[in-house]
Amino acid sequence: MTENSPARPFLEVLSGCRQPSPPLWMMRQAGRYLPEYREVRARADGFLDLCFTPELAAEVTLQPIRRFSFDAAIIFSDILVIPYALGRAVRFEAGEGPRLDPLDTPAKIEGLNTVADFATLEPVYEALRLVRAELAGEIALIGFCGAPWTVATYMVAGHGTPDQAPARMLAYRHPEAFAKIIDVLVESSIHHLLGQLQAGADAVQLFDTWAGVLSPREFTRWSVEPTRRIVEGVRAKAPGAKIIGFPRGAGALLSDYVDATGVDAVSIDWTAAPSLIRDEIQSKVAVQGNLDPLALIAGGNALDQAVDDVLSSYASGRLIFNLGHGIQPETPIAHVEQMVRRVRDFRG
Amino acid sequence: MTENSPARPFLEVLSGCRQPSPPLWMMRQAGRYLPEYREVRARADGFLDLCFTPELAAEVTLQPIRRFSFDAAIIFSDILVIPYALGRAVRFEAGEGPRLDPLDTPAKIEGLNTVADFATLEPVYEALRLVRAELAGEIALIGFCGAPWTVATYMVAGHGTPDQAPARMLAYRHPEAFAKIIDVLVESSIHHLLGQLQAGADAVQLFDTWAGVLSPREFTRWSVEPTRRIVEGVRAKAPGAKIIGFPRGAGALLSDYVDATGVDAVSIDWTAAPSLIRDEIQSKVAVQGNLDPLALIAGGNALDQAVDDVLSSYASGRLIFNLGHGIQPETPIAHVEQMVRRVRDFRG
Repeated sequence: MTENSPARPFLEVLSGCRQPSPPLWMMRQAGRYLPEYREVRARADGFLDLCFTPELAAEVTLQPIRRFSFDAAIIFSDILVIPYALGRAVRFEAGEGPRLDPLDTPAKIEGLNTVADFATLEPVYEALRLVRAELAGEIALIGFCGAPWTVATYMVAGHGTPDQAPARMLAYRHPEAFAKIIDVLVESSIHHLLGQLQAGADAVQLFDTWAGVLSPREFTRWSVEPTRRIVEGVRAKAPGAKIIGFPRGAGALLSDYVDATGVDAVSIDWTAAPSLIRDEIQSKVAVQGNLDPLALIAGGNALDQAVDDVLSSYASGRLIFNLGHGIQPETPIAHVEQMVRRVRDFRG
Repeated sequence: MTENSPARPFLEVLSGCRQPSPPLWMMRQAGRYLPEYREVRARADGFLDLCFTPELAAEVTLQPIRRFSFDAAIIFSDILVIPYALGRAVRFEAGEGPRLDPLDTPAKIEGLNTVADFATLEPVYEALRLVRAELAGEIALIGFCGAPWTVATYMVAGHGTPDQAPARMLAYRHPEAFAKIIDVLVESSIHHLLGQLQAGADAVQLFDTWAGVLSPREFTRWSVEPTRRIVEGVRAKAPGAKIIGFPRGAGALLSDYVDATGVDAVSIDWTAAPSLIRDEIQSKVAVQGNLDPLALIAGGNALDQAVDDVLSSYASGRLIFNLGHGIQPETPIAHVEQMVRRVRDFRG
């Protein structure tokens, strides 16, 4: 960034500089709550086709920026593109969530490819280049992948489950076999994040959506340690790369995660305890979050109060305003506008 | 308790005295993993009939005590007996979980009975009296109810959901209507817990299974404050009553819960952070938990290690060894025996 570059508040916060008006974006901001997304989605031959068609992926990535002037765009993709590049069958069926062939025995894991076919992911990098070329200079571009634990939970079970029991059980019964899945995902994730950074991403986020179901020992082994290796591996080739971690539901284990992994920021969900976050987390790294997506659906006074709670809890430190989880399809656009106005009007 | 009473390690811990060998019981210890339970269950005309037939409820309550010599029996009942006593239709259908008529609009809530028919619950008290008469003096007897927030989530949605979105949304959109449900449950819970204490319970537990989905503001309003009122209401008529809270998934908000509610102990789930629990919780109250029920299914080294982790994390303070959530039906009995041996052999 040269002296003449426009200010990029999102990156300023990641670099350690609190902004009086916190930068703002939303997890899943390119999504079904937007009619213009649904229109493009209808033109694609399924969800993966949308992810892997650069022009379409770039278009839906840019839509929420045009509509809401967010401070960051996140590339439209999915955490399951890595299992797909590893040769696992990945299907997205309407209304059902993702389906994979379960990888739930040591024998099956023995046959897992150890190197992904990264040519498969080239359209993601091309989409990033297209977005980068279109984005105004002050808007940051975020790449991402799923953290190994969370991606593994889907690979093992073959689908989402309420508590990820299949992966947790495999990890208890066959820790060495499970570690092989994790190791493959660590290496693939490093490669994929570097590819996204080279294609124009200003920062990357690691989504560990299911970190919160693990005991402390398992959290260290399957969430913290793989994330630490990814951060180290990415920075070995891209020194100073900005990395956001999101170990959702980590609760009071978040402090260990921050200390051990070396991330620049953590996303927090809406159940986080403000005193812990301020004292033990925000003193070390930036914090991103954490509006309850249901408050965004509810709107009205409940939304205003929830926005104000986030700001009063965290805006005195390094804060990137966001949701505590992805925006849901039934969210009214007027409520997003209400939230954006309230955050933009804030000066702390 | 006179000087000649046998020692009751479970109550000693609740009263502030650490035991070198932690007392032990399991949430859902009377349940489907036991063949003798399945045999009695088959004789009852449905799940509620089992709860409301004192001889059968007492029998299944005593089964795990006979088999494993646990330090506490918990009366066999259900958190939905209170909605049932409030006149709500409650059905337990095989393999489906509970079903209620949804209470999901202000108009429906307007019609909610404000006083429960406590005669309906008389069989629960009779079951407690039967168990008390059969229990050896050193075994404690626990009564329980669901905490208002958790019971309300089922009453509003009419069934279990992964994130209790229906109740959370109602609470955002119509906080006054939702507060009426909570107020009715607070009063009913006080009455029901007092009934259980009068019938012979030595302690009571408040299960707030869904506390962990709430933002800090909502956690204070819907979990902490109703629990505080229940603790106060019970102790007003039963001074010194021993009360255990279980706000599952409260994470770092647990400290606020302990400070505000006045409970004697908290149950913690397996994802709790040991340093937080030791420094901020166990220094004030007893802790009950927190073996991962999946480790109990897994058995072997994973189970030994998980048991040892609980003991090394918490047995230096006031600990009641338990699971972090209820035992699951597929758990092998041999694994429960392995756990019991390992805990009983421990001296800290």
